[in-house]
Amino acid sequence: MTTPLPRPGFADVEAAAARLAGKAHRTAVLTSRTADATAGGELFFKPENFQRVGAFKFRGAYNAIAALPDEARAAGIVTFSSGNHAQAIACAAAMLGTKATIVMPHDAPAMKRAATAGYGGEIISYHRYTEDRTEIGRRLASERGLTLIPPFDHPDVIAGQGTVALELLTDVPDLDTLVVPLGGGGLLAGCAIAARHLNPGISIIGVEPEAGDDGRQSLQQGSIVTIPVPHSIADGALTPALGAINFPIIADLVDQIVTVPDAALIDAMRFFAERMKLFVEPTGALAAAAAFTGVVPTAGRRTGIVISGGNVDTARFASLLAD
Amino acid sequence: MTTPLPRPGFADVEAAAARLAGKAHRTAVLTSRTADATAGGELFFKPENFQRVGAFKFRGAYNAIAALPDEARAAGIVTFSSGNHAQAIACAAAMLGTKATIVMPHDAPAMKRAATAGYGGEIISYHRYTEDRTEIGRRLASERGLTLIPPFDHPDVIAGQGTVALELLTDVPDLDTLVVPLGGGGLLAGCAIAARHLNPGISIIGVEPEAGDDGRQSLQQGSIVTIPVPHSIADGALTPALGAINFPIIADLVDQIVTVPDAALIDAMRFFAERMKLFVEPTGALAAAAAFTGVVPTAGRRTGIVISGGNVDTARFASLLAD
Repeated sequence: MTTPLPRPGFADVEAAAARLAGKAHRTAVLTSRTADATAGGELFFKPENFQRVGAFKFRGAYNAIAALPDEARAAGIVTFSSGNHAQAIACAAAMLGTKATIVMPHDAPAMKRAATAGYGGEIISYHRYTEDRTEIGRRLASERGLTLIPPFDHPDVIAGQGTVALELLTDVPDLDTLVVPLGGGGLLAGCAIAARHLNPGISIIGVEPEAGDDGRQSLQQGSIVTIPVPHSIADGALTPALGAINFPIIADLVDQIVTVPDAALIDAMRFFAERMKLFVEPTGALAAAAAFTGVVPTAGRRTGIVISGGNVDTARFASLLAD
Repeated sequence: MTTPLPRPGFADVEAAAARLAGKAHRTAVLTSRTADATAGGELFFKPENFQRVGAFKFRGAYNAIAALPDEARAAGIVTFSSGNHAQAIACAAAMLGTKATIVMPHDAPAMKRAATAGYGGEIISYHRYTEDRTEIGRRLASERGLTLIPPFDHPDVIAGQGTVALELLTDVPDLDTLVVPLGGGGLLAGCAIAARHLNPGISIIGVEPEAGDDGRQSLQQGSIVTIPVPHSIADGALTPALGAINFPIIADLVDQIVTVPDAALIDAMRFFAERMKLFVEPTGALAAAAAFTGVVPTAGRRTGIVISGGNVDTARFASLLAD
């Protein structure tokens, strides 16, 4: 057994911001007259598709590696992910002069493997139907003396992701509502810590794909609900359960968790491309889809919308929008 | 006969910048590590796909309408365009409290008609194979007392487009090369005026679609060469000839005109989407395609690249990238 990791607070988000200064992009807040007209209120988009490696994940990964004691950092990092966290860890490790080992399913898309390898990460393949990636990650950590940094269930990862809301609320302090995509809960928990501290009265809403509403169920039930891996085009939010560190933060600080169907994600991706000229991945469109469809009320309000990432290849983008 | 219109100079670009302040978006300069690595030099992108109406055309249209005497402006504007200039005139006219009449082919895409009408423009349809849009525009101007503002062959339109280079060279003064898409020559002529004034030693390069190299031929021959309407996916650059005001400016100030094939535009659009998360129309990718394919040398140099616009619907984007 390892000691339980501490729950991060606002000071940890501030410490993360200091570590990320000059390393992560401070993404600009974007607005759209057309979006505002549709929403009947003011929308403020935080485009983390422009973040390093194309997603907010860079923030948590870099913060977690930078926060390690020198010796542990030098010994190397291991993680398990087939998505944006893998690239984020590989990129951040390279920037911080250490080595990343990434446990990835053997059938992960070639483009994602290539991107991770391109940042200098060593990829270890596993079979997703017969092997347990967490177990492999832990074994590698133990055998090779590496530090395991999981995708969301980690205080420094959560604190790093919280800098998204810290920046947004610094640029636009008087938001009524903050809407955040939700998978394992790293981004939502971190953003909730920052937003609740900076603006105690703000309404904080997490958005899941309709097919995978474990977060909503967990909030209703008051404990972590695990569901079968959901089927949704939001491939960054296909987590069966919230993280153990993430859940109590979300339960304390988040007002509501809502869901949107995949069709609403496609509509939002089309809006982003055609009207705002932004290339957004399905998961990245979760919060916007909730606002555009009225699941989150926006009329007469000032609403912050986190776009979590833009990592979708054009072939998949085209096939999604053609359906 | 009307009196020939004067050739605009740098003071006109500065006057345009003053008129556009707070009205046009001052688009930020974007960079990409991956693009730099590919280019072997530093690339600085000016993303006019984020401009109002999704293209640089707003600058020239707004400037030309704002520069009119009050009485003429109040009487209304007419133009002919099936593309970005139509929306730009409609939007700028509405902002300046006057009315725009747009002569548009009867088979113009529904989306473009809707966008133009959405800005309050009155659309007059003509048959593109049997009627002459310039003639219709002139007749409407004369019958209704409207001022005709054509898409590129106009000094205030040219001066307005020149603010693109004025801003880029203010933000990045020490560019070695400036690369600009070329259709009728409004953007290239305006940018050349600003860039040559601010940085006399800069290399200024225009980029046309391979299928429509009338600009290159004109520069070689020393007079305006007219070609049949070219076939290219770069639908914003399908002009048969440079403008009469534009040509001498380009001949004096531009170093070279190069061409790129449509396939290179598609590759550049894919790069913009996947790596920079930008949604760019085919014409908007002309300058980048020239840099990415080596037609414009970038190794060891600092190169400014104008992205002219992002108005392509997702269905067409998908079908172009699927070919």
